[in-house]
Amino acid sequence: MNRRGFLTAAGGIVAAGLAAPALAGTVARQGAPPDCEPFFATHQGGIATAAQTHCYIAALDITSGNRTAVASLLQRWTEASARLTLGLASGQDSGDAIGLSPARLTLTFGFGSGLFIKEDKDRFGLARQRPDAFVDLPHFPGDQLIEAQTGGDLLVQACADDPQVAFHAVRQLIQLAYETAELRWVQSGFIGRFKDKETPRNLMGFKDGTGNPLSSDKQAMDQHIWVGAEAPRWMQGGSYMVVRRSRMALEHWDRMNVGFQEQSFGRQKSSGAPLGKIHENDPLDLEAADKDGNPVIPENSHVRLATAANNDGVRILRRSYSYNDGVNFIAERWPPWHQGMEYDAGLIFVCYQRDPRTGFIAINDKLSRFDMMNQFVTVVGGGMFACPGGVAKGGYIGQALFESA
Amino acid sequence: MNRRGFLTAAGGIVAAGLAAPALAGTVARQGAPPDCEPFFATHQGGIATAAQTHCYIAALDITSGNRTAVASLLQRWTEASARLTLGLASGQDSGDAIGLSPARLTLTFGFGSGLFIKEDKDRFGLARQRPDAFVDLPHFPGDQLIEAQTGGDLLVQACADDPQVAFHAVRQLIQLAYETAELRWVQSGFIGRFKDKETPRNLMGFKDGTGNPLSSDKQAMDQHIWVGAEAPRWMQGGSYMVVRRSRMALEHWDRMNVGFQEQSFGRQKSSGAPLGKIHENDPLDLEAADKDGNPVIPENSHVRLATAANNDGVRILRRSYSYNDGVNFIAERWPPWHQGMEYDAGLIFVCYQRDPRTGFIAINDKLSRFDMMNQFVTVVGGGMFACPGGVAKGGYIGQALFESA
Repeated sequence: MNRRGFLTAAGGIVAAGLAAPALAGTVARQGAPPDCEPFFATHQGGIATAAQTHCYIAALDITSGNRTAVASLLQRWTEASARLTLGLASGQDSGDAIGLSPARLTLTFGFGSGLFIKEDKDRFGLARQRPDAFVDLPHFPGDQLIEAQTGGDLLVQACADDPQVAFHAVRQLIQLAYETAELRWVQSGFIGRFKDKETPRNLMGFKDGTGNPLSSDKQAMDQHIWVGAEAPRWMQGGSYMVVRRSRMALEHWDRMNVGFQEQSFGRQKSSGAPLGKIHENDPLDLEAADKDGNPVIPENSHVRLATAANNDGVRILRRSYSYNDGVNFIAERWPPWHQGMEYDAGLIFVCYQRDPRTGFIAINDKLSRFDMMNQFVTVVGGGMFACPGGVAKGGYIGQALFESA
Repeated sequence: MNRRGFLTAAGGIVAAGLAAPALAGTVARQGAPPDCEPFFATHQGGIATAAQTHCYIAALDITSGNRTAVASLLQRWTEASARLTLGLASGQDSGDAIGLSPARLTLTFGFGSGLFIKEDKDRFGLARQRPDAFVDLPHFPGDQLIEAQTGGDLLVQACADDPQVAFHAVRQLIQLAYETAELRWVQSGFIGRFKDKETPRNLMGFKDGTGNPLSSDKQAMDQHIWVGAEAPRWMQGGSYMVVRRSRMALEHWDRMNVGFQEQSFGRQKSSGAPLGKIHENDPLDLEAADKDGNPVIPENSHVRLATAANNDGVRILRRSYSYNDGVNFIAERWPPWHQGMEYDAGLIFVCYQRDPRTGFIAINDKLSRFDMMNQFVTVVGGGMFACPGGVAKGGYIGQALFESA
């Protein structure tokens, strides 16, 4: 069953101005398409969901000062998301996804700190609902954040196995926000079409995501990723999302020999195995030393600094995408090797965790100071967002927050 | 047979610094992978090739004044392209495509006018080889070309069914050019995963490419697309490529009702049929009038102005991709409907033709003045490039040009 079938059966966008028919009836008549991720669930999609090949992230600033208007937007977004993830048209649909399947579309919503307090104002009476764990990201050494690419009061992440489906979905949601919020920054990303179960490679050529908790491991997910009873009710079952737009100095990286790259990362490039090991999932041997007594996995390598064993056992769920936004003029300060047009490409680092204070912030506090990879990566944007728990049919995203006292 | 198999068998990138083994031996031992487009052929790939889902285009300026250095670059590019299109590593490969299939990668090379004459200089002694048909693009009404996104002496277009494969290929080629040429602009693009044989939709939601000559129609291709004996030998079997980075005012477009959109385009949105007809491939009836005697397909609609019947029978081969490069601040002058962050998204319009004077230039001379779509589209970059004929094994791209007197 493809989108065209749904649209035709539903009256579709062709009949502009006609109200979209009730969702339940359409789906009941036709059944959900096979490549469809459920929107109504205990947790929001796009977090534990197996990574799709494309994403489109949009951060918005709320322009209304009215709490009801924001709640109403979230209701419209919920209704539209339920349709879009089924491959159905939404409102006066822009039509560019007619004929495309749902492509496993997920829509993930997050709240920025500005929803609670902005410029010292509690605009919506929600400040008391801000969880203790939802602190601001500190400035990390080396950060070069561009304000126009950082922060935002609301975040929408669309992930799908088709770039047009992901953008289409966000575009319909943004249309619904015109009177309430405006775009602040957006970012598209991709992952190569690696085989199922194979850890994808980022643009540095290394596997990225090895060691993630498995979404099927309920105990690990509950312990490390999903927020529990420590938080206000609206955030329970949710997760804190950190986004970091990390530009890679690819021209620089490409001129390093592979041995140096592997020392920096602490893993082998081809297999993904830890240095000194054979297979990707072999455990890191942090004690292993070479014949001179030096650690096989260097002290300042990325994996040694980031691994749970060196971070009080804390794990985060990385779910990153590569990005590729053209070229611009850069003068590298060190080493003095090049000045000219360089790729604005790298990683949209995305991670989820139950508590960012012990998760990303603690881990990155070390990484930002010692990681050998830092000389090839500059973080220029992103932010932290509280993604509330999932929604049941009849409810809407963030309902428990907006209906709180 | 996937890329990992090839790389392992070939020694691969893991053994950095080892010379890549001879191509012929590797392929003979293992056979070419199934999703592989031939590099050595009568015509270059990526022109008549069925469109892949992603592209990455790079335009370069030549920094060397030495004809032999440029010819040598084209030799290295040819050798690398033959490997990359088979899914093999190239040189000190960046490794980000290990595990990915060739994904129908094609690499298409074009020459800008600067290869022949730049700032009144015949840098490489090639000016006399410039074909008469290879004129400069005129300024069209409404063009807002940004110099940094326009032109270039050399162009590489990578198309593949995987964005990571397309970028990977260009990245390896750019590494080979470090001493001879530098990046001027790049652009990535995509097409949604529409079903085979279905005309894809662009971001306006309309089918784009209906009425293209079929690549299987040798007579039409020879008549309209492939350059013949009228050109110098190096250009025979080639085609002239026009690239136009066309930003769409999507927020504006999305607020128009579908009836207005269809009048502007001259086709129905859902079916793609010409106004007044039923099926996408029904011929345009330019004579049809409504009960008041007005044309069913408006005089200033896109299809009426562009169709061969109104352009001396000339046809061009459109092979465009959508692009999506974030948002930036725009103040729309008309209608005064919005000022704020808008999508930098639209169409990388790409077309090929035997003679741009009677092809794109003649057609766009009318379109740029009368097309109702113009109010939603602004062209901000691109250029024209002469893509020489294909290469036989043992030869290199542009060889006949560089070996000419």
